[in-house]
Amino acid sequence: MNNEYVKIKILPYNREVIVEKDKNLLQTLISAGVNIYASCGGRGTCGKCKIKILFGEYTTEEPSQFISDEEKKQNIVLACKTFPKSDLSIELLNQLDVIEEIQKHSFLQYEFFKENLKEEIEKNFGVSPLIKLCQLDLPKPSIEDNTADVDRIINHISQKEKINVVFDNLKLASNLPDMLRKNAWNVDCLISEKFCVNEENPVYNITYISPKIDKVYAIAVDIGATTVVVALVDILNLKILGVYSTLNQQIVYGSDVITRIIHSEQNNGLKELNQKVVYTINELIDIATKNAEVQLKDVYTAVVSGNTTMTHFFLNLPAKYIRREPYIPVVNKILPIDVSQVGLMMNPQGKVYCLPLVASYVGGDIVSGVVACGTCPASCGIDESDDLCVLLDLGTNGEIVVGNKDFLVSAACSCGPAFEGIGITSGMVATVGAIEDIEIKYTEVKYKVIGDTKPVGICGSGLIDIPAELYKAGIIDRAGKFIKDNKVFKNRIRENDNGELEFVIVEKNFTANNQDIVITESDIENILRSKGAIFHGLYTLIRYLGMNLSDIKKIYVSGGFGSFIDIKKAQVLGLFPDVEQGKFVISGNTSLLGAILFLLSSDARKRIYKVQQKMTYVDLSSLPMYMNEYTSSLFIPHTDLSLFPNITKELRR
Amino acid sequence: MNNEYVKIKILPYNREVIVEKDKNLLQTLISAGVNIYASCGGRGTCGKCKIKILFGEYTTEEPSQFISDEEKKQNIVLACKTFPKSDLSIELLNQLDVIEEIQKHSFLQYEFFKENLKEEIEKNFGVSPLIKLCQLDLPKPSIEDNTADVDRIINHISQKEKINVVFDNLKLASNLPDMLRKNAWNVDCLISEKFCVNEENPVYNITYISPKIDKVYAIAVDIGATTVVVALVDILNLKILGVYSTLNQQIVYGSDVITRIIHSEQNNGLKELNQKVVYTINELIDIATKNAEVQLKDVYTAVVSGNTTMTHFFLNLPAKYIRREPYIPVVNKILPIDVSQVGLMMNPQGKVYCLPLVASYVGGDIVSGVVACGTCPASCGIDESDDLCVLLDLGTNGEIVVGNKDFLVSAACSCGPAFEGIGITSGMVATVGAIEDIEIKYTEVKYKVIGDTKPVGICGSGLIDIPAELYKAGIIDRAGKFIKDNKVFKNRIRENDNGELEFVIVEKNFTANNQDIVITESDIENILRSKGAIFHGLYTLIRYLGMNLSDIKKIYVSGGFGSFIDIKKAQVLGLFPDVEQGKFVISGNTSLLGAILFLLSSDARKRIYKVQQKMTYVDLSSLPMYMNEYTSSLFIPHTDLSLFPNITKELRR
Repeated sequence: MNNEYVKIKILPYNREVIVEKDKNLLQTLISAGVNIYASCGGRGTCGKCKIKILFGEYTTEEPSQFISDEEKKQNIVLACKTFPKSDLSIELLNQLDVIEEIQKHSFLQYEFFKENLKEEIEKNFGVSPLIKLCQLDLPKPSIEDNTADVDRIINHISQKEKINVVFDNLKLASNLPDMLRKNAWNVDCLISEKFCVNEENPVYNITYISPKIDKVYAIAVDIGATTVVVALVDILNLKILGVYSTLNQQIVYGSDVITRIIHSEQNNGLKELNQKVVYTINELIDIATKNAEVQLKDVYTAVVSGNTTMTHFFLNLPAKYIRREPYIPVVNKILPIDVSQVGLMMNPQGKVYCLPLVASYVGGDIVSGVVACGTCPASCGIDESDDLCVLLDLGTNGEIVVGNKDFLVSAACSCGPAFEGIGITSGMVATVGAIEDIEIKYTEVKYKVIGDTKPVGICGSGLIDIPAELYKAGIIDRAGKFIKDNKVFKNRIRENDNGELEFVIVEKNFTANNQDIVITESDIENILRSKGAIFHGLYTLIRYLGMNLSDIKKIYVSGGFGSFIDIKKAQVLGLFPDVEQGKFVISGNTSLLGAILFLLSSDARKRIYKVQQKMTYVDLSSLPMYMNEYTSSLFIPHTDLSLFPNITKELRR
Repeated sequence: MNNEYVKIKILPYNREVIVEKDKNLLQTLISAGVNIYASCGGRGTCGKCKIKILFGEYTTEEPSQFISDEEKKQNIVLACKTFPKSDLSIELLNQLDVIEEIQKHSFLQYEFFKENLKEEIEKNFGVSPLIKLCQLDLPKPSIEDNTADVDRIINHISQKEKINVVFDNLKLASNLPDMLRKNAWNVDCLISEKFCVNEENPVYNITYISPKIDKVYAIAVDIGATTVVVALVDILNLKILGVYSTLNQQIVYGSDVITRIIHSEQNNGLKELNQKVVYTINELIDIATKNAEVQLKDVYTAVVSGNTTMTHFFLNLPAKYIRREPYIPVVNKILPIDVSQVGLMMNPQGKVYCLPLVASYVGGDIVSGVVACGTCPASCGIDESDDLCVLLDLGTNGEIVVGNKDFLVSAACSCGPAFEGIGITSGMVATVGAIEDIEIKYTEVKYKVIGDTKPVGICGSGLIDIPAELYKAGIIDRAGKFIKDNKVFKNRIRENDNGELEFVIVEKNFTANNQDIVITESDIENILRSKGAIFHGLYTLIRYLGMNLSDIKKIYVSGGFGSFIDIKKAQVLGLFPDVEQGKFVISGNTSLLGAILFLLSSDARKRIYKVQQKMTYVDLSSLPMYMNEYTSSLFIPHTDLSLFPNITKELRR
């Protein structure tokens, strides 16, 4: 059988790709490199891959619950259910392929560090970047002093800097002799830490030599399952030049980590996931360097922080055993890697450092977070605290660390990506147009939109508000079910096309995309499952350690959405434990911050490696008390109200 | 102007190459990869690139002093003076592109080590190869013991072997998870020393992992300017499986090191020299592995020993400053290199180790030789000796080491390749057909031929005999000039086509190639210059140290031709000092032996690195007494006969 091909023209980008005729359009578009987003991984169960066919012939599997009659008339279809029969012109809908410079969203400390990075690092850790500039003024060789060029440089640096230096780059050695002589033995040299193992005296290698090096940049990368963030750092001036984030393009293979691991086990799937994340990071590097007028060749170092699965995909390492009992990663401690091995857009002589991992579900983002969480506002970090501290990292996955300077225990709870706005009818990531705050007062629904524009959807911090607000307004019960006879809001409560009850938060004539912003009963169920997983995880871990929630002296809340959370509302929801609000510290993106600290301070590196060695992992699902009692946390705030005494008192008022 | 091309068919290989019409045939043949040998580097001054044109049109520059009338009639021309005008068929003459398995030539200890390698290494150093096999019986992971796969292996080896291990190979990690599980956590693993710096606790890296590894081979390589030797070593059974040698194909760019450095400074010249030596080594690896029925993938380690220039060419590093005052190499201490960086035919995951260098004219061959020279027959090596020792390494270059356990001083003398048979009318390398021993008794010229065949030419050990024998027979005077009125040998003394006197050693009807084997006055001058450079170098160095020749307790003589030297005859020639013959130790190819020791013993590695650090280099040409008195050593045995009291007495008898 001969394959026939058709041409697909994609709007609004005016891009053209050639795909096989009669083949599944979602799959072929993804293969052709189009970033089309389907949180279900193309199984037809999420309804996210809507496209509008503007021109051409096709067949589509009907009926789809996700396509309304109105949409059908407009030729709107699901790409995953559509098969082209001729050349097509299509328009991508619902797509979120936006790169934005982060001002405050996702990285709370940006403004702070923009001004004070150097001072803060000096104060908290001491500055000693992974990559150092050495200005060499070498003794000129003579018949009496006839050491080889490379050895001369090594001896000079070793003596001057009191460090171990090696030279392992033959290519660099080729141009060296002429360069040294043309520049009268005065050249600039970059050295990088070669081993990041827990050693008192790290070994450095010579990364680059040039007559004059006056620009040295590095990037710190946070690979989240949903969002990838890149910070561009000026090493010589110790400044952050920009922080940029975008969707992790792996999302086209599924929104949660497990779906992606399943995809990675398919033919070529791992390579696809690897390419998507490398491409995403490169896009961010591209925009960050262009905006800062930095040349890619001047970027020598990358520090990558991510959960275990994201780190494996970034390194093109198989993740299949991460999801199989007993859940074993390929590697935890990762040595510095040559740029060529991972394909980042930066100086090809540079090095890529991955933060060390603890277990399949506790990765480098958490290890660095334990050290970083105490930095801004400044305290000492969990690993140096006398008091019992907790780190709650809330993203697509939820990770929990409990400990102090003597011990560190970690656990993961599969809270799902609801708080990233994924899998929620009107959910969206925390960007311009997202509702970040909701309050129901009397008959009115008040909300705040990021960027002060018309709203498009609801992001994590807004989603946290909803169940508590709906419960307080008598719209849902403690189990999250709609109370059908609510009179006050009867205009806003309705049954949708699937026969499910939903609450209209914003009517379409007030939204930016002319669509109602709603919350359905399954959305609420989804949110309760997520919050239940997190609270119950923490509660179980504390009990597992023989302690009580009241023993906790500090709770650091980090993660993309954690930065803008209303603590009280999160307690009402039953997401956060009912302890004094003063114990909570909103810590922002500690994964990225940890990567920056790792980049800039050897003290931070030593602490991060110590944390990685010290931290133990508890598999919650192997604990009977976790599995048996989980459902009791699916209520607002909990079935056991004695766990939430203050909140209960307040709700009753 | 359009380029026109012609086809050159080369016999006896039946190879065809396409070259530019009207262009210099030697240059174009070399560019096309033909190993055609011209010791002058194609400047028309050596007459070695003779070819016979069997068919086709050409022009040739005439007259050439190297082409006799008889040869002219046979269409024999110099390739460097010839320009093709049509397709040609040519036959290469004088070419020595022979690979041979070494039995005793060039590597004295072969038979010895073939049997006793393990015992000898154990006795002298202790066995601990650069590459080790670890058979892993890993604890199975569980929820409680959830270390990552790679970290599990590292921890296991570190504990079991009490060494530092790192894993820096992402590709290897990719297949690891499935392999471990399929093989019930029993796999074999190869670890290699990662740093060979002078450390008590070297770091190992994981080189290869496989369900079952029962074959581990390595090669030791001696890159001589004239001859390249490869030994194939079975690491698991500690046996040498074969030693093979061939001409260093770089010889097409000149027979001496300086001519090659000049070539390397031309456009693409360095790359050409690099490719030639890599190709030469690969040819030897190919034949060695085929004969031993070893697969290339099972060869994991290469140890390369060579002088500084050879090591630079092997690493594709520029050598231009080696020949310019103050004579500085690019690098002395070389870290292990990935196979892919140098292009050797072996397991691509393997590592290549280069022996460390001391200075531009004292390389890894000498450093390893200092340790190796005492091994066979066993003594302690210069670096551990209480007594004053000398190492004379006689090859294309001559290197001298003087020292004991307290100090080591080295020097180089540009003795030229005469003793390799290069630049001598009937000279040849020490292989089958070479005259290795000559004696003139009464009217008779007696000689011994390697392989007991008809002779083809004279190799180094034969060339040493000639001046002394001719002098004793009254054929030449002490300055090496023919005594024209010699009656006894008047049939053998004649004037050649160039008007130069020569002595016929073997007439053409007794030779294998139907050509007279002769020695000319310039040949003798050449030999005297070489011997003079070596003796005078040693004599100068000893005086520079404030000592006398009589203080020397032991003289190790190494190098390809050094193995078969007649000590007495070398003393008569004035090459070796006039000390008791019992002080001389013929040590064979200590460069190759040193590479084997480096491969197999960590004690040897430590000693070799210590020698490299300790050894100082003296530039003889900067010492007035060397330059001013050199000519006095150009006599048989010397102008100052008091330096050779015993020899003088004997010659007078």
